Amino acid sequence: MPDIVFHDPPRFPRGFRCASRLVGLKSEGKDLALFVSDVEATAAALFTRNHFPGAPVVLGRETIREGRLRGVVVNSKVSNVATGERGLADARRMAAAAAEEIGTSANRFLVSSTGVIGVRLPIEKIEAGLRGMSAELQSDPLVGAAGIMTTDTHPKALSASVGGATITWVAKGSGMIEPAMATMLAYIFTDARIDAHALNCMLVDAVHVSFNMLSVDTDTSTSDTCVILANGLGGAVPERQFQETLNAGCTRMTEILARDGEGAKHLIRATVRGAASEEDARKIAKSLINSPLVKTMVHGADPNVGRLLMAVGKCFDCTIRPALTDAWINGFQVVRAGARLDFDDAVVRKALANEVVDLEVSLGVGDGGARAYGCDLTKGYIDENAAYYSS
Amino acid sequence: MPDIVFHDPPRFPRGFRCASRLVGLKSEGKDLALFVSDVEATAAALFTRNHFPGAPVVLGRETIREGRLRGVVVNSKVSNVATGERGLADARRMAAAAAEEIGTSANRFLVSSTGVIGVRLPIEKIEAGLRGMSAELQSDPLVGAAGIMTTDTHPKALSASVGGATITWVAKGSGMIEPAMATMLAYIFTDARIDAHALNCMLVDAVHVSFNMLSVDTDTSTSDTCVILANGLGGAVPERQFQETLNAGCTRMTEILARDGEGAKHLIRATVRGAASEEDARKIAKSLINSPLVKTMVHGADPNVGRLLMAVGKCFDCTIRPALTDAWINGFQVVRAGARLDFDDAVVRKALANEVVDLEVSLGVGDGGARAYGCDLTKGYIDENAAYYSS
Repeated sequence: MPDIVFHDPPRFPRGFRCASRLVGLKSEGKDLALFVSDVEATAAALFTRNHFPGAPVVLGRETIREGRLRGVVVNSKVSNVATGERGLADARRMAAAAAEEIGTSANRFLVSSTGVIGVRLPIEKIEAGLRGMSAELQSDPLVGAAGIMTTDTHPKALSASVGGATITWVAKGSGMIEPAMATMLAYIFTDARIDAHALNCMLVDAVHVSFNMLSVDTDTSTSDTCVILANGLGGAVPERQFQETLNAGCTRMTEILARDGEGAKHLIRATVRGAASEEDARKIAKSLINSPLVKTMVHGADPNVGRLLMAVGKCFDCTIRPALTDAWINGFQVVRAGARLDFDDAVVRKALANEVVDLEVSLGVGDGGARAYGCDLTKGYIDENAAYYSS
Repeated sequence: MPDIVFHDPPRFPRGFRCASRLVGLKSEGKDLALFVSDVEATAAALFTRNHFPGAPVVLGRETIREGRLRGVVVNSKVSNVATGERGLADARRMAAAAAEEIGTSANRFLVSSTGVIGVRLPIEKIEAGLRGMSAELQSDPLVGAAGIMTTDTHPKALSASVGGATITWVAKGSGMIEPAMATMLAYIFTDARIDAHALNCMLVDAVHVSFNMLSVDTDTSTSDTCVILANGLGGAVPERQFQETLNAGCTRMTEILARDGEGAKHLIRATVRGAASEEDARKIAKSLINSPLVKTMVHGADPNVGRLLMAVGKCFDCTIRPALTDAWINGFQVVRAGARLDFDDAVVRKALANEVVDLEVSLGVGDGGARAYGCDLTKGYIDENAAYYSS
């Protein structure tokens, strides 16, 4: 993957702006965000595979079929999931209110909601809150990112140049995160000119190596949505170059989401090579970052490296030969031929204390490789989630 | 399942005795246990499916092939996993030392080790510790159970009568527990007369509905072992009656292991009915008890019941119709037709505060049913596992 330079601070592509407000769903911060393109954009989206998708996801699948969007409207605090027919009607009202404010039709707005499951959306507050919001649209993507936060500790936006165009990523998510087809909520904006079909193919490719390799806690949200809008104002860009930049930004955003996992103090990257297939490599990399015992080992900087073998070995259907299996922690070899090396504990303790912990496993049985992204498991995760509904 | 009356206190079948000692692997408590039948017993065993089985598991698979055992020798603190050829030689020395003490051959002893992965077994301490241990053999199974504990908070033994015979279960395990083919360490002793083949079939059946439906933390140990010895001293017992009692005891022991999961305060039972197949029901029940968000919801008695739907819905390959899905917590209905009911939070809070939390899901799409066993996720789990190697 080429080295991509991300802008600091992040900025929007030509023709994109956003706004955010506090409309009374939360008691403080922002709870409503509006992202708008001045002109109609081609669009593609991926949604959660959870069998209980939220009303916005059900509506979004319908909306995205035409491959064209003017914008995205998002609320936090209440996810509008498990709310029945009334929830779907509320999602439609939210799209209509945003469209009216911008002067377009409801089927050009993608709706997202994130927060508690099973609580009715306060749609009147959202409708009232959207009125006049178009006057506040501005060019700082962090403003919109602030409106979609739930347990995130900071707003998340990135941007990078590609040819004469720009790509901007805005995302949220820190718990209920093992996306399968998309991540919690990720919005990607570009002024590159790309047709909807190509956009969809590139999004699928990028999400495959980034958001779909992320897990904070193995739990797949009912609201996962990843959408990309391309308004064409920056002209055409070579497809391969666009794909590389798209993948790099999605991957970087994945790392940011993992590092900000609920309660997390470390980003854990698990890289697997020499697997019998890419599928095996993906399974094993996910098994490593999902293992509570690997996660607590990193949290405590405890050189209990046998747990790496445990987590690799519980992938029952993968081809694994203990005698060919090696492992490293931040470049320091801890396992050779399936056995723990007789290393100096202090060195491994120090490697595990890094903010970024790279776990590498070489299986020696083929050419398959993959990388997965996760975080450590701490008491902060338990604090966040033992009273999420009540607080 | 018939109501089984467990003995209080638990006792051994005719001809079985045990002893335990502190031989210097731990600093306190017991670290070595010996279980012996006065006469040769038929035997069957199931082991972990982890690709990095411990040396005792590798040896155990060889030993159990003959279907005959005189006893089991177990140490705690060090698991003898990821220790290479030297580890296998150490496991053989341990079997030989136990056999010599009892006056039998090494291939009549099953060896188990549990504890830290990747550390060499202090075999000399074990050999020295075994000497004279046969003089201490006694009839209280809790004595042996004390010798195999790691992070368990109490020794675990059960017994029940079946016809003229007795079955006794001794087990350990509180972390790295999502058994697949067997559980952490479970030893079952009976004086019923049963041939090795029938014994194996019955063990497979019992483990399928009990230990294999247990998960404390989704992590599959490299040492999982479940073995049954039948010495025949109590005579024949009707097979069906034996199977029922065996299943009931394995299930009760599964609940005891789950309740004593690392850091746990609650036993969670997830019952799924109306699934398209038993396989679907098992997957969904496991998904519920493995979800960190369901586990923290129970821990905090937080009526965030939408998480039940999330955990059901992330079983992508299962047949699920939201409009037919209902759910209950300790008998109180919280979800109807895929939507959260408008219930009194205080009632659900109270239900979740029970030591035993029964989650029930009805899918309405078929006849498949299953029950899984787990526990809540607490800060105690993190304390145990962030410094397990170092402490």
